[in-house]
Amino acid sequence: MGKRKQLKLGAIIHGVGGNVSAWRHPEVPVDASVNFRFYTKQAQIAEEGKFDLVFIADGLYINEKSIPHFLNRFEPLTILSALAAVTTKIGLVGTLSSSYSEPFTVSRQFGSLDHISGGRAGWNVVTSPLEGSALNYGKPEHPSHDERYKIAEEFLDVARGLWDSWEDDAFIRDKESGVFFDPSKLHRLNHKGKYFSVQGPLNIARSKQGHPVIFQAGSSESGKALAAKGADAVFTGHENIEEAKRFYKDVKDRAVANGRSRDDIAILPGVGPIVGKTEEEAERKYLEFANLVTIDKALEYLGRFFEHHDFSQYPLDEPFPELGDLGSNSFRSGTDKIKQTAKEQNLTLRQVAIRTATPRSEFIGTPEKIANLLQQWHEEEAADGFIIYSSTPEALRDFVEEVVPILQERGIYRTEYEADTLRGNLGLPIPVNRYAVAEVRG
Amino acid sequence: MGKRKQLKLGAIIHGVGGNVSAWRHPEVPVDASVNFRFYTKQAQIAEEGKFDLVFIADGLYINEKSIPHFLNRFEPLTILSALAAVTTKIGLVGTLSSSYSEPFTVSRQFGSLDHISGGRAGWNVVTSPLEGSALNYGKPEHPSHDERYKIAEEFLDVARGLWDSWEDDAFIRDKESGVFFDPSKLHRLNHKGKYFSVQGPLNIARSKQGHPVIFQAGSSESGKALAAKGADAVFTGHENIEEAKRFYKDVKDRAVANGRSRDDIAILPGVGPIVGKTEEEAERKYLEFANLVTIDKALEYLGRFFEHHDFSQYPLDEPFPELGDLGSNSFRSGTDKIKQTAKEQNLTLRQVAIRTATPRSEFIGTPEKIANLLQQWHEEEAADGFIIYSSTPEALRDFVEEVVPILQERGIYRTEYEADTLRGNLGLPIPVNRYAVAEVRG
Ligand SMILES: Cc1cc2nc3c(=O)[nH]c(=O)nc-3n(C[C@H](O)[C@H](O)[C@H](O)COP(=O)(O)O)c2cc1C
Ligand SMILES: Cc1cc2nc3c(=O)[nH]c(=O)nc-3n(C[C@H](O)[C@H](O)[C@H](O)COP(=O)(O)O)c2cc1C
Repeated sequence: MGKRKQLKLGAIIHGVGGNVSAWRHPEVPVDASVNFRFYTKQAQIAEEGKFDLVFIADGLYINEKSIPHFLNRFEPLTILSALAAVTTKIGLVGTLSSSYSEPFTVSRQFGSLDHISGGRAGWNVVTSPLEGSALNYGKPEHPSHDERYKIAEEFLDVARGLWDSWEDDAFIRDKESGVFFDPSKLHRLNHKGKYFSVQGPLNIARSKQGHPVIFQAGSSESGKALAAKGADAVFTGHENIEEAKRFYKDVKDRAVANGRSRDDIAILPGVGPIVGKTEEEAERKYLEFANLVTIDKALEYLGRFFEHHDFSQYPLDEPFPELGDLGSNSFRSGTDKIKQTAKEQNLTLRQVAIRTATPRSEFIGTPEKIANLLQQWHEEEAADGFIIYSSTPEALRDFVEEVVPILQERGIYRTEYEADTLRGNLGLPIPVNRYAVAEVRG
Repeated sequence: MGKRKQLKLGAIIHGVGGNVSAWRHPEVPVDASVNFRFYTKQAQIAEEGKFDLVFIADGLYINEKSIPHFLNRFEPLTILSALAAVTTKIGLVGTLSSSYSEPFTVSRQFGSLDHISGGRAGWNVVTSPLEGSALNYGKPEHPSHDERYKIAEEFLDVARGLWDSWEDDAFIRDKESGVFFDPSKLHRLNHKGKYFSVQGPLNIARSKQGHPVIFQAGSSESGKALAAKGADAVFTGHENIEEAKRFYKDVKDRAVANGRSRDDIAILPGVGPIVGKTEEEAERKYLEFANLVTIDKALEYLGRFFEHHDFSQYPLDEPFPELGDLGSNSFRSGTDKIKQTAKEQNLTLRQVAIRTATPRSEFIGTPEKIANLLQQWHEEEAADGFIIYSSTPEALRDFVEEVVPILQERGIYRTEYEADTLRGNLGLPIPVNRYAVAEVRG
């Protein structure tokens, strides 16, 4: 193996927060999820910290029990396009579901974002965990977990084909002769598959980075298989370094089995560091958050992963209930883990709910401690980098001002952007145009 | 009738140009259609001119004969979102097809743009004239003209229902009590129609302007009917003031027949003014453009309106050929007019092709002359305002610097924005939330 790449950083921006009660914290603006100034500020702080990317999550179904941020939030492509105009180097990655969209539209919109931003777009391909999504899209039923991943695979293949519609030297644009393009460098995909049939060509060319960077965020078997086959990066979540190392090795081995290099796919677990000048200050900051979550809200939040199951019907201080298959068609990898941990550690419903709603990560403490942990995860191949969750808007600034300089001093994190494009900064190759290859071969 | 509103202005931004050869003009950057700086500059010039809006057209199908701008251009929602970040007052209107999209996604994306921009979004609802669009969306066939308008009507109804999911006072956001929203102010649409079935609620609230402004751009009978029923504005095109007056009266009368006020719908024809210090200078500028178009290109351009019909098979200097129904399922109002004019005026194919590819509008001349014409069209109720096509990037600046001040001096055009929202500037009412109304009535 060659020299290890430096560690990569992303910041997830999620308005009033990724948990059920974060919005009650005094520092969180109550309208943050639809506040463009808030998103701008977070993205600019991340860019000051030389982060590789900002990340926008998404979902296609809400009900009365959804967490506050999900109820009323920006749609990823629009907010990322706006952020493209107020940043210059940072990558712009957004979630979009392959289960409820059209490849022609999605390829165009990400292609367009990629041009607007000068090659900084990324697409987190998800398959939509929530069954209710089908109701908003006039579908008779939510496709099964397996089928959703089959759709995703074909969808991604079509998107890549569309992005290659134009070879990079197709546009001649000679005013004198009046020749705008070379028709032999324009290609029709003519895709006819099980789920999609798309002729092409796409009405936008490739950007500087070739294709938008492809993220994948499902951790089930099918999720890992999809990632190993073609994703550039994996957004994942782990409770401890041992679990993260197993996952890391698993996905990298699968990538190699698919004929790819270990370096072609970046594994980026999400972590929510809470930085304090002292251990006590960090602990106090953590508790400020955890204490906002009532047990009712925690049960409701837990229910979200299990198809909005009503957990208030069970006794709180008895063993976590037997749920059968519930949840396995939506957030499968997450619900499997919850069930398994509850059984192994003999947890009560109350314990499971509180842990799920206010996970107490190990990344709480002084800047040194957090930098050490990040370095350790990186060095021991548990991660190629991290997606940083910030519990308050100030938390991201603390991280950038206190932790980033330590990583930089140690030489494991950039002090300047290496490139203008997201691929360039992640150290990922520019995909070869499938039609250009055909000509070389032919 | 009360005091007449001042005239409204929009600027269409269309990269390398709305015709086949505009890109060859020395002032046009050859990559303008995918150049964000170009779009930013045009939008900012329009905002300096206190324009109501910028307008982005769109299409879902290209082939080797498409005009250069269509081959490789920004997608409307992404470019408008980016423009939201570099402008503060101007409206942001984009074309999106109701024939090849999902209402849940479209409502969200326009809703999100509306929040990002602080209430400046507008949606030009089109039904997609080009048959080839079906091939990019896996549809067995392009729906007929009539059916496309039926789909559009239902689509718009669903979109409006989704935008009303949240009443304006639904969000309580009280940190102390932990109440984020009032569930009685959250509404499910539960729409089940012929073309769409959408439960809701939408995961984004209404913006400051209530709903994005609805534009309509089809001039056929069904197009006018759709506009009269529910559009806030109509983008249209006319060859002379008499035709424009007939259209204006027709649409306003239809709106009144639908129980609306004449003032509730703005009629905005597109015009392409060419400003010169003298008549001769203006004429010279026009010819610089017209002379770029070869007869081959003009025939190809003409073919675009007739399902890419190959006109090179006919003799150039004989009467315009008999085409039967060709074109009536795509750009019907446009093709009907071309056929009719050719017959009435006894035109040859060459004449029709050249006129279509390089229309010679009457808005060519000194700033005074152009201001007079705009004022006349406005006063005589041929238009409530105009969408300005600019043939070069400099043409928009000329218009803003030379013509706008004359309109301002005459008191028929604003010197400052009246409002922050597009509805506010267009003087259009904020739509009442359908659920809030129900409660008042109930
Ligand atoms: C770290 C992480 C982030 C995710 N982000 C999203 C998201 O933004 N939107 C979404 O619909 N699903 C998201 N998912 C869900 C997955 O895409 C996937 O649909 C779900 O986990 C079920 O698939 P799996 O069983 O392969 O994990 C995320 C999952 C993980 C692990
Ligand atoms: C001024 C004007 C602008 C238009 N802009 C678009 C556009 O951006 N994209 C599009 O697909 N169609 C556009 N159209 C086409 C119409 O939406 C419509 O599909 C076509 O004209 C056929 O419908 P009709 O017969 O009702 O006119 C435009 C039409 C007019 C008159």
